[in-house]
Amino acid sequence: MESLDVLGKRAKAASRQMAKFKITKKNEVLEMVADELIKKADEIKKANKADVDEAVKNGMKPALIDRLTLTDARIEGMAEGLRQLVALEDPVGEITSMKQRPNGLMIGYKKVPLGVIAIIYESRPNVTVDAFGLTFKSGNAVILRGGSDSINSNIKLVEIIRDTLIRAGVCEDAVILISDTDRKYVNELMKMNEYVDVIIPRGGAGLIKNVVNNSTVPVIETGTGNCHIYVHEDADFKMACDIIYNAKTQRIGVCNACESLVVNKKIAKEFIPLVVDRLKEKNVEVRGDETACEADSRIVPATQQDWGTEYLDYIISLKTVDTIDEAIEHINKYNTGHSESIITNDYNASRKFLDEIDAAAVYVNASTRFTDGFEFGFGAEIGISTQKIHARGPMGLSALTTGKYVILGNGQVRK
Amino acid sequence: MESLDVLGKRAKAASRQMAKFKITKKNEVLEMVADELIKKADEIKKANKADVDEAVKNGMKPALIDRLTLTDARIEGMAEGLRQLVALEDPVGEITSMKQRPNGLMIGYKKVPLGVIAIIYESRPNVTVDAFGLTFKSGNAVILRGGSDSINSNIKLVEIIRDTLIRAGVCEDAVILISDTDRKYVNELMKMNEYVDVIIPRGGAGLIKNVVNNSTVPVIETGTGNCHIYVHEDADFKMACDIIYNAKTQRIGVCNACESLVVNKKIAKEFIPLVVDRLKEKNVEVRGDETACEADSRIVPATQQDWGTEYLDYIISLKTVDTIDEAIEHINKYNTGHSESIITNDYNASRKFLDEIDAAAVYVNASTRFTDGFEFGFGAEIGISTQKIHARGPMGLSALTTGKYVILGNGQVRK
Repeated sequence: MESLDVLGKRAKAASRQMAKFKITKKNEVLEMVADELIKKADEIKKANKADVDEAVKNGMKPALIDRLTLTDARIEGMAEGLRQLVALEDPVGEITSMKQRPNGLMIGYKKVPLGVIAIIYESRPNVTVDAFGLTFKSGNAVILRGGSDSINSNIKLVEIIRDTLIRAGVCEDAVILISDTDRKYVNELMKMNEYVDVIIPRGGAGLIKNVVNNSTVPVIETGTGNCHIYVHEDADFKMACDIIYNAKTQRIGVCNACESLVVNKKIAKEFIPLVVDRLKEKNVEVRGDETACEADSRIVPATQQDWGTEYLDYIISLKTVDTIDEAIEHINKYNTGHSESIITNDYNASRKFLDEIDAAAVYVNASTRFTDGFEFGFGAEIGISTQKIHARGPMGLSALTTGKYVILGNGQVRK
Repeated sequence: MESLDVLGKRAKAASRQMAKFKITKKNEVLEMVADELIKKADEIKKANKADVDEAVKNGMKPALIDRLTLTDARIEGMAEGLRQLVALEDPVGEITSMKQRPNGLMIGYKKVPLGVIAIIYESRPNVTVDAFGLTFKSGNAVILRGGSDSINSNIKLVEIIRDTLIRAGVCEDAVILISDTDRKYVNELMKMNEYVDVIIPRGGAGLIKNVVNNSTVPVIETGTGNCHIYVHEDADFKMACDIIYNAKTQRIGVCNACESLVVNKKIAKEFIPLVVDRLKEKNVEVRGDETACEADSRIVPATQQDWGTEYLDYIISLKTVDTIDEAIEHINKYNTGHSESIITNDYNASRKFLDEIDAAAVYVNASTRFTDGFEFGFGAEIGISTQKIHARGPMGLSALTTGKYVILGNGQVRK
């Protein structure tokens, strides 16, 4: 592999070319890559088999092996993902405002690509194609660093993409894979401020924390969600149970799943057994405070640590509160800034919750599971930002852009 | 001083209160603080005198002592800055869109404060008041860490602000000064991800680099500007000379001053002596490449290092090029992503330059000195961002905000 410095330079040069492409060209290339993935499905599966065999040999858990495995259906899914991007509007090029200043200067703001985006991710090889599609459609060059578990799959996928770019007359360095999985390259990548404009980590909490703590390149933090649902005293109990059941059990290992319930004490005795009944349909373990345990003997006592835990499992914590203010304080203390929901029929309680909860997505009477680029209507998603700068919540194509001021003068000098 | 952990917790708590304030309350407090600064001018000058005396004793340069010194006029200037903020619209609270999804969910995006902003800056004490005003108007709490040179002034200014907040019934921890100037607190502050949402460094290149390299809290990088002006072959020579003279000499030590000229070789012989004549009115040293030196004997040879240097002095570099493509390549290689200008009457050249130069502000026929929040009509400025994420170019109040999704449902669960 070339040195990262050389790869960074190439990505930067490619990003200059990328920024000039018209939307028709970008869409043509996305279609070409989609076709090529289908055509070369056998080659992809062969490369993937090497990864899977290695994983089996190393005793990887079946669930993870399943995530790693590429089938015809999954390859078609990757191609389909690229085709869906074609239908979306070009996120760059628009001048969103152009105002005249008293001195006659016309000052406009134009949406432009970020430049070079680095994506550091774990074992799912479909992220490789997905990340290429999103960054390419938004006019960026991308440096990919996938996990060692899927290295053979990634090398093959990127080879197919780069070959297609060459055929299309596009600089193939618009997509660069760091093919050596030595960790030292991740460390180097995180310091390449000269060539990399932003790093997006996608994966588990450990990966994300490592990038946030060690990158000097700006990072968009994605990920962890300790999401709460607060059941207010006047909630519709059936709606509350339906939403909680959905938010906890519809998909377990995702960041927008509900991990903690907060229930008003006025309804504790009546409501808690109902929701425990419902959760027990999927054998969810409920860990509660004293009032919760008193309300239902199936609840086990929670420890302090439970309030801050993202289980990603069939476990949920349950805290009881006297007032909505106490609920908000508890949630703002323990949440990770992801998704929080209130179940209520009270107008003032709904407004208070929406105003005062500090999170990317705040819901009234709906499941937290909707925090997602597709569900929000963005047509695509590169991740869910849990930080406040640049992008917050589900990130679609526009999160992969920035702007530049364009200023038209006729000789103005500053007085 | 309390531990930084305690101060961070307090700032976070204050930010929750801040986020709830109506614009009328925020404006009332800004007026009160402005009045109080004027009323306590003598106290401020007394505290400032201690800083100035210490600086004189330590042999600080006269120009820096001047920046440090607070006079009645400067205190009035700080108060006036706060009053100007009153006239500006509230940057938070607006729901900028609210769309209905096919499942009936209403999904809106609301502008909200960032939360807790930390500002690390150097010796000018007016930044203390300025940073308070901008962060307060945008509904944030702020942690200030000024330089040791102005510590007595900063302590007094923050004391006046906090006393006024208390009188106004606002949590005084909306403004916290790190009053111990030990460097270890800066290091600690840069790792306080739990309490600090963003850090903005304001000062010299060394300060900014230190923050970018060591902060795990998201940083908005401001500052250095190696700004170019490219004189195209068909430029109006008089306009070019006026703009270059203004951009280089109107104010020397600022990030939007022009540091480098790029001149098309077709006009080198004719144009270069004209612009050197003009720059020599202020004794500007011109460092040029071979063609430049041949065109005017007053030009001294440039070294490779000159192309990348932000002089902040009466020095300018001059590079000659054969084509606009070469000019763009040179500028994109050496610029710092700040402000770049082309002087031309050619429509296609102007569009090409605007499209292909990678910088926060790209000009046609105007001085780079206009890159500034006030000149752009934002009414205020917290700095000029030279990074691409979150904010690019001059940052007004809206750069101190983020958003949150508010989602109104009536029982929706995910399928």
